Parts: sequence; structure tokens; C-alpha cells
Amino acid sequence: MSQAEISAVNRIFEDAVRRRDLERMASVYTADAIALPPGGPIVQGRENIKRLWGSALEEMGVKSVKIETVDLQLAGDLAYEVGRATLALPAGPAIVKFVVVWKKEDAQWRVHRDIWNADAS
Amino acid sequence: MSQAEISAVNRIFEDAVRRRDLERMASVYTADAIALPPGGPIVQGRENIKRLWGSALEEMGVKSVKIETVDLQLAGDLAYEVGRATLALPAGPAIVKFVVVWKKEDAQWRVHRDIWNADAS
Repeated sequence: MSQAEISAVNRIFEDAVRRRDLERMASVYTADAIALPPGGPIVQGRENIKRLWGSALEEMGVKSVKIETVDLQLAGDLAYEVGRATLALPAGPAIVKFVVVWKKEDAQWRVHRDIWNADAS
Repeated sequence: MSQAEISAVNRIFEDAVRRRDLERMASVYTADAIALPPGGPIVQGRENIKRLWGSALEEMGVKSVKIETVDLQLAGDLAYEVGRATLALPAGPAIVKFVVVWKKEDAQWRVHRDIWNADAS
């Protein structure tokens, strides 16, 4: 049940990237989410994460993201996911690994902690 | 209480790195832990993580690690931590950001999911 809900949120995010809908991308995060992008500082809060993704789409030229869940464990209103994401970039696809801590708030699963790094090079 | 216990495990890990005690470093992980090192594949299981750290100490020349907790939230037998770690390398210190999912097993907090990446460059 919850696993399907979390998977659905990942599909919403993928779709929002394709549409370049930053508002919708940010909406999958909790208000006090924390994102940890490689080579950058810790980013706190949905609004700052929205700006982070705005830069990623513009500066890195991310066209799409495909999220693959490797491991997802539920624990009450929390869940943690390990996975891989394939980013379509102008120079070709880039694969990153990630850990996401999910939090259920107001009956909605949202990304609460989000960190990723490059996969095997 | 649990926060102090988790902090104590971080101190054990720091001490184990200083002593180059791989067995003790690996002992802070759950048997089925997953580590996600930057630029490498997903590493599953305590024994493989022990080998990962063995390579890090040898090939990267890690002399010590200092862990700073930025955010730690408890939820039953799970916890998630956001932090920074300073690695002493031959070329000078390197700062990484991390997310750790902690799991309490047999009355002992252990690292269950562990991912890090470079801080602002």
C-alpha cells in the first residue's frame, strides 16, 4: 500500500521533471526537507530545494530523471529508500545512487531527506 | 538517551579509524547494511563494507574521520542522521556530507544505510 504510494510519488517527480514543472517537483518534498547535492552545501527547506532543482534543470540541462528503487523499508510514518536514478543530460545519461528518507505527513508520503552521488564510473 | 547512544557509536567509529581497526569499524554496521560510496557501486553487507573501508584507509590514505551531527531524528527503532565528516587525507582535509539511517538491533544502535558525497568545493 504505502510502497505503491511512494512509487507513485516517484512517478509524479519524473513526470514533473519532464514537464519542467518546478512547483510540482518541489511539492514532493516536506516543508522542512533537507537535500544534499554532491559538491554543494546542505539545502534546507522546500523553497530552497525548488531553487536547487531550478539550477539543475538550467545549468546542468537535466531533461529527465528515471528513478529505480533498489530497497524500500517502511517503519510507521517513515520509510527509507535506496535506489538509482538515471539523469538525461546533454552529454548523455548519468547514473546516480541515492538514499531518500520518506515521511508521511497529512496522509501524503513526501521526501524528507534526499542525498545522492555518482555511481561507479 | 538514544541520541547519546548514537553519538557514542560515532565516537567508537572515529576511534576505530584512528587505530586502523577495520573489525571495529565494520562492527558499527548492521549485518545487512548498505553503503553508497561516491563514484562506486552500492556495497551490501558488513563484510563488503569492511573491505570498502580497508580500501579507503589504504588507497585514499584516510588517517582519521571526525563526524559532526547536523540533524538526528529518532523514530522507534530507527533514526536518521544528517551530518558532515572531515576526513584527514595525505593532501589535506576533505569534508563530506552524509545521511545515515540507524537501526536498533539487539539493544544496539547500528548504521544501516550510509551514503555521503563531497561538500561545497
